[in-house]
Amino acid sequence: MQPRSVGIVKTEYVELFQPPNELRLDSGEKIGPITVAYETYGTLNADRSNAILLCHALSGDAHAAGRNNEEDAKPGWWDDMVGPGKGFDTSKYFCICANVIGGCMGSTGPSSTNLRTGRPYGLSFPVVTIADMVRVQRELMRHLGIERLMCVSGGSMGGMQALQWTVDYPEMVLSAIPIASAAQQSSQGIAFDVVGRRAIMSDPKWRGGNYYAFGDPPLDGLALARMVAHITYLSEVSMRRKFGRRLQDRERYGYDFATEFQVESYLYYQGDKFTQRFDANTYLYITKAIDYFDLAASKGSLAEALREVTAKFLVIAFTSDWLYLPAQSREIVSALKVNNVDVSYCEIESDYGHDAFLLEVEEQERLIGNFLSGVAREHGIA
Amino acid sequence: MQPRSVGIVKTEYVELFQPPNELRLDSGEKIGPITVAYETYGTLNADRSNAILLCHALSGDAHAAGRNNEEDAKPGWWDDMVGPGKGFDTSKYFCICANVIGGCMGSTGPSSTNLRTGRPYGLSFPVVTIADMVRVQRELMRHLGIERLMCVSGGSMGGMQALQWTVDYPEMVLSAIPIASAAQQSSQGIAFDVVGRRAIMSDPKWRGGNYYAFGDPPLDGLALARMVAHITYLSEVSMRRKFGRRLQDRERYGYDFATEFQVESYLYYQGDKFTQRFDANTYLYITKAIDYFDLAASKGSLAEALREVTAKFLVIAFTSDWLYLPAQSREIVSALKVNNVDVSYCEIESDYGHDAFLLEVEEQERLIGNFLSGVAREHGIA
Repeated sequence: MQPRSVGIVKTEYVELFQPPNELRLDSGEKIGPITVAYETYGTLNADRSNAILLCHALSGDAHAAGRNNEEDAKPGWWDDMVGPGKGFDTSKYFCICANVIGGCMGSTGPSSTNLRTGRPYGLSFPVVTIADMVRVQRELMRHLGIERLMCVSGGSMGGMQALQWTVDYPEMVLSAIPIASAAQQSSQGIAFDVVGRRAIMSDPKWRGGNYYAFGDPPLDGLALARMVAHITYLSEVSMRRKFGRRLQDRERYGYDFATEFQVESYLYYQGDKFTQRFDANTYLYITKAIDYFDLAASKGSLAEALREVTAKFLVIAFTSDWLYLPAQSREIVSALKVNNVDVSYCEIESDYGHDAFLLEVEEQERLIGNFLSGVAREHGIA
Repeated sequence: MQPRSVGIVKTEYVELFQPPNELRLDSGEKIGPITVAYETYGTLNADRSNAILLCHALSGDAHAAGRNNEEDAKPGWWDDMVGPGKGFDTSKYFCICANVIGGCMGSTGPSSTNLRTGRPYGLSFPVVTIADMVRVQRELMRHLGIERLMCVSGGSMGGMQALQWTVDYPEMVLSAIPIASAAQQSSQGIAFDVVGRRAIMSDPKWRGGNYYAFGDPPLDGLALARMVAHITYLSEVSMRRKFGRRLQDRERYGYDFATEFQVESYLYYQGDKFTQRFDANTYLYITKAIDYFDLAASKGSLAEALREVTAKFLVIAFTSDWLYLPAQSREIVSALKVNNVDVSYCEIESDYGHDAFLLEVEEQERLIGNFLSGVAREHGIA
């Protein structure tokens, strides 16, 4: 096992919202029971005050750190940041990560069996929102006996959940670290998601969402959706540096339509790899939740929406992120300041684009580590 | 008819490269005959010195200005800039615009009938390059009796053709105006094109390119390709301003997967509209030509590639264009300056993104008008 790793971690499963106590969603629909897949790292202290909730992004899962078994080729998605001595220091803090509702990595989503019909939900699964994801996480905290979170953090859609937590359960959250995120999905962000969803829904194998029984899912559509999204995760500079115009396995142009540019080969690989682990319908539901996200919408302004927030904030953005612009993070910071919330803002110089939130480890480790130490000190968490 | 319009214009057709004088392409393949659709505006003067070649972009055609008949709902794609008293002043200059080889708007392309087989070429059509497009245009000039062009201009891919002209036929070009263009397609630009091509090729109705006989072309794939490309033509700011997060025909979220955001509705409309006028295979060929474009490649550096250039240049870029960045235009300017070419550079402040080249009319009209007057004066063109 590598140094500073949380080691072997088992994914846990719990059934929440058992009827008749179903979850009432933003849409008005009710759903239950809901299975939640989650993992925990570190040890909950005696007064249950050192819990940190980590929220995953669009394609993430409950497996944030360590390995699920000895044969695991890759550690969890945030392993660089979660472990003993790391940014989220599991020798001090008790970290929790859960797959969101609507997901396909163990939590109830469109690929899950609807107990009433005995068949997968497909598109009969209700549309969920970021606030619905947070409601499920809040119930998970109740299940774990955690009344207060020392911190909620996440990148991209994970940052949206962190923001939503501070608004919906202000009394439960001591601090929040939204990373490479925004208080609302931009018009351009919606546009890219629209293309991804249309790619899936126009794949004939999608069959109106009822593809599960056929054993032949809409992989082409899902791969396409992932490819276009992947471009938005990189920056023009990082693509130029990583691939430029270099050819793959060719010395010169082939004058045909075979894969020949390195960037082409890379995108195909990313698209196809994604289809091996992800469900096309979940892609529809999660991107829709992201597109619906707009903290300010119901309150008229972001400052008004953040009025009850008491959590201390560390907001992190990356200079070359064009999916969630630094300007969008600064908007959050300004709205928090209007409400006299204690907020630190850090714009990290990086060429990696949106992906920087997973790649710029060193500076984030330092920032997050110091920020959490401050919160622990302030609240006497040991 | 509107003031300053070229009026009713008839598209002309000519067959060039009749066997055995086929065109030899960059790929080494030969093709002929090649039909070229073109239009002309204004009058060629007595010494044939006032000819200007206008080169169209990816989705353009020979119909740059005026209307093809009285019922035409829309004028040509560059009507704002081409006409009596406009930027390309047809009361002074003789303007020519031709559909590129590989196109689907009258010139020979993959949807044309291969005379040898009696069937549409489909993917048996040879892959063409920007230089090949220019070779065909050069032959059209010969057919029209034009030995020297006063100017070659175009936006986007049209700018690439203008650049290629000044390199391949330096003795024939007095001036060039590449607009919102680049000396090479960027890695990110290739990436978006890759997604577009994959969208088409993974549509089952594409049938390996042989869809013509079935009367059921791959509209879904082509619409998707257009949608993703369309995002790259706008800017984040222009999308925010034009659509924001506003809903279309709905007061509140529908919590379903129907079209609901204005930006979504707009992209669907653009995608579907495009399929009514464009051929999917042509989309593959033209984007491939764009991706192959790299003026510097064969010469080691852009400055070296531009060494024989004698044309005077006006290079125009737009601040918010992220498909062809102003930095890419400045690269052209620098390389021209190394060669002591007379070059003016204008970076127009605009929020419209890449589309600005068609929308920022006023400033371009002034710039282009003045530039052309200078060229005319210098060379005694009247």
